[in-house]
Amino acid sequence: MYTLGEIAEFIDAKIVGDSAIQIDGIASATTAKSTQLTYISGKKHNKALVNSQAGAIILNEELLNDCPTNALVVDDTYLAFAKITHYFKKQITHQAGIHPSAKINNAQIANNCVIGKNVVIGSNSIISANTVIEDNVIIGDNAYLHPNATILQGCLIGDNVIISPGVVIGSEGFGNARDNQGRWHSIAHLGSAIIGNNVTIGANTTIDRGTLDNTEIHDGVRLDNLIQVAHNVIIGEHTAIAASSAIAGSATIGKRCMIGGMVGIIGHINICDDVIIGGKSIVDKNIKVPGMYTGVMPLMPHRQWKKVGLWITKLDKIIKYLNIKLKKLKD
Amino acid sequence: MYTLGEIAEFIDAKIVGDSAIQIDGIASATTAKSTQLTYISGKKHNKALVNSQAGAIILNEELLNDCPTNALVVDDTYLAFAKITHYFKKQITHQAGIHPSAKINNAQIANNCVIGKNVVIGSNSIISANTVIEDNVIIGDNAYLHPNATILQGCLIGDNVIISPGVVIGSEGFGNARDNQGRWHSIAHLGSAIIGNNVTIGANTTIDRGTLDNTEIHDGVRLDNLIQVAHNVIIGEHTAIAASSAIAGSATIGKRCMIGGMVGIIGHINICDDVIIGGKSIVDKNIKVPGMYTGVMPLMPHRQWKKVGLWITKLDKIIKYLNIKLKKLKD
Amino acid sequence: MYTLGEIAEFIDAKIVGDSAIQIDGIASATTAKSTQLTYISGKKHNKALVNSQAGAIILNEELLNDCPTNALVVDDTYLAFAKITHYFKKQITHQAGIHPSAKINNAQIANNCVIGKNVVIGSNSIISANTVIEDNVIIGDNAYLHPNATILQGCLIGDNVIISPGVVIGSEGFGNARDNQGRWHSIAHLGSAIIGNNVTIGANTTIDRGTLDNTEIHDGVRLDNLIQVAHNVIIGEHTAIAASSAIAGSATIGKRCMIGGMVGIIGHINICDDVIIGGKSIVDKNIKVPGMYTGVMPLMPHRQWKKVGLWITKLDKIIKYLNIKLKKLKD
Repeated sequence: MYTLGEIAEFIDAKIVGDSAIQIDGIASATTAKSTQLTYISGKKHNKALVNSQAGAIILNEELLNDCPTNALVVDDTYLAFAKITHYFKKQITHQAGIHPSAKINNAQIANNCVIGKNVVIGSNSIISANTVIEDNVIIGDNAYLHPNATILQGCLIGDNVIISPGVVIGSEGFGNARDNQGRWHSIAHLGSAIIGNNVTIGANTTIDRGTLDNTEIHDGVRLDNLIQVAHNVIIGEHTAIAASSAIAGSATIGKRCMIGGMVGIIGHINICDDVIIGGKSIVDKNIKVPGMYTGVMPLMPHRQWKKVGLWITKLDKIIKYLNIKLKKLKD
Repeated sequence: MYTLGEIAEFIDAKIVGDSAIQIDGIASATTAKSTQLTYISGKKHNKALVNSQAGAIILNEELLNDCPTNALVVDDTYLAFAKITHYFKKQITHQAGIHPSAKINNAQIANNCVIGKNVVIGSNSIISANTVIEDNVIIGDNAYLHPNATILQGCLIGDNVIISPGVVIGSEGFGNARDNQGRWHSIAHLGSAIIGNNVTIGANTTIDRGTLDNTEIHDGVRLDNLIQVAHNVIIGEHTAIAASSAIAGSATIGKRCMIGGMVGIIGHINICDDVIIGGKSIVDKNIKVPGMYTGVMPLMPHRQWKKVGLWITKLDKIIKYLNIKLKKLKD
Repeated sequence: MYTLGEIAEFIDAKIVGDSAIQIDGIASATTAKSTQLTYISGKKHNKALVNSQAGAIILNEELLNDCPTNALVVDDTYLAFAKITHYFKKQITHQAGIHPSAKINNAQIANNCVIGKNVVIGSNSIISANTVIEDNVIIGDNAYLHPNATILQGCLIGDNVIISPGVVIGSEGFGNARDNQGRWHSIAHLGSAIIGNNVTIGANTTIDRGTLDNTEIHDGVRLDNLIQVAHNVIIGEHTAIAASSAIAGSATIGKRCMIGGMVGIIGHINICDDVIIGGKSIVDKNIKVPGMYTGVMPLMPHRQWKKVGLWITKLDKIIKYLNIKLKKLKD
């Protein structure tokens, strides 16, 4: 917990308001409460600004008139947000062994597992060798964690979940703010990753935690090996995703979808329920109608592809050319 | 081992035959022996059905007349199969340290390794720190396992094999049966993963075990980092596969092939010997003729790609249009 | 250290020169010193050959006349090079725990870490549970290594570096020489991987060491999860690469680039500063002009893609056909 005055110093902001109020967390503009901080980037969020219940808001000078609460005025709000997140990241215990505060209810813990402070593990769960579970993780009943997995602080894992070897849950999201010298400043991700019941997660798959809200994998989801699930992604119930796919930040996938292997899903995309995506496709726009979608270049003998590939880069020109020729002939 | 009567109860099947016979395993219809169970899905497998030597067969009512042995009649054979596999999955020891039954013949075992029951490790092999080897794994001579690798139960690894850090061998395949409410039921994979001699496997690569038969990586194969090899894949001798490729279930790759990086190979595909696949291509049909094959979209300035991409989605329409225009002009 | 006579025996070469000289390392033709060995493949490297300062050069008979120093004459120079690298690979300690020679300056080391001989870890650094750091690694101040990471021998890691769970740094590159029977012979990679200051590396990402020179990740770089960085890649300052991308051997990426997720970059490619690559593209040629580049197949309803995909494979033929038709009409 910091006073607003301390926070203003951390991020080099001008306070307009009460520097003595206590701030105990960060949340998005629409959900932040009176003891929390938020930030507004760009004019399009003006509605969120004027209705915000936050204790204080990081914003640009030009938005100051619309600010309903205490303001922290900076030049670059996203960069200031990135910097302040680190002050709210929880420190964890690093020499836990199995921490005495951990509640392990009739679960099996294999060799060389490290289990942090306040961890709860449900009954009949198995934690295999060399797996690391950080502070404040809660794992349900009948879960099976295979060897060499890593569950980072504060993640929640439901009942009957299977986590394959080498899986990482709760890693930092890939959110970075760039300063005016082109340097990246990482955002400390304060959200969590929440895995529902009856989920299976394949070997070496990685699931990032959310920035402020959570990454969510709903009940019954099936994830294959080597999949990347970025921060704040939501995957609906009973959706299955094949190996080596990657889902970028804040994408939302509906229920009962079947996503092929090596599919890429762009950030902030929405896919509705009951969608099938062909293997190796890229989903670069929202999908609002159930059905099967694909977009891949077919395989050809290399010699043929060299010709085809060349024509493709000239496709708009050749079509324009053919149309003009046709017109001329007609005239 | 279960009686057929017990199995019928586990999967809620009607027995037609001898409920007292003992079943000690599951195998495919063509290889199952008189003490094993198998299943038949769909009419096209009728030949496998009538010739099966299995002790019992899970099937639909309509195939009952063609069943040469004891039958377990269910509505959804694949779902029933998925459910019964879990009864035949071997339980492993979870607090082994280095299990006293392990036979380690003049090999070096580094710190924090966990080595299960009945494991055999050949002479001059090195098992690096924090690696986990589950029950019944057999590793040959002169193998080098790097740190933080995981070899799951029952896998076989040949002589002179190099396994890089973070590799997972023998993870569960991505096989799931869907019930009539859209929920997935995992298949317990009862096959193994068999790695031949002189194979090298790159960092964080994952190799799934087979469903009933084995996943096979033959002698001299080179696998780069972050590759996914799914259940029942067979990779022929001296084939090399570059990083971040993914090979879907039951694909077969011939000998001496060279597969580029980020290549996707669809399930059940066959690639003959001496094939070269250009990086990032998708192999979506069988390849029967040696040679080089490619299929990727070439890189363009983004502005150009936006036009080209639009034409591509309309390619069949524009070609039809041009053809009609030409015909009209001719007439 | 070996005499040239010993080396000739190891790789079955004919010596032309002084078999008694001592060789203590291998380097590229342009950088090798008088106590080092190098190799020349193909006539195009003749300039490097005649100017080489190496103590000895592996080459073909036909280049012997141009050799300015001791020669090791073989039929297949690359294969001979691959074989001799293994004699210069440093052996590491395999039962270290925390080796007494490690210098740990006010850093936190969590449970089950294994830290090799002569490792140096800077002040305020945190090494999380079950992480393995091999001999001769140097880590700067304020570094944070998450659990289950592996840093292989001799790698250098700067200040303020964040290494996510499951990361592998310094794995062997995917370099193999093929003999005349189609068998692969691995090259032992003698270079290192050097990570600059203020770099973050995402979960389960893999960074290979260089063949003779180093793989380099410069200051301020951001790497997301599940990225493959191959041997001898150089990534310039403040470049950010999104998840599941793969960069093949000896590619060079400039400063301040932004590479999307699932991008593939072909080996030996050069990308200049300030380039943006759209997600899922392949970079298959050098990029010399800053700007944004893309090349992906757009997503379509599967039925439409089946038609479009067919036309694409016939694109050169249909364009040729339309052109001929047009010409005929004109005549």
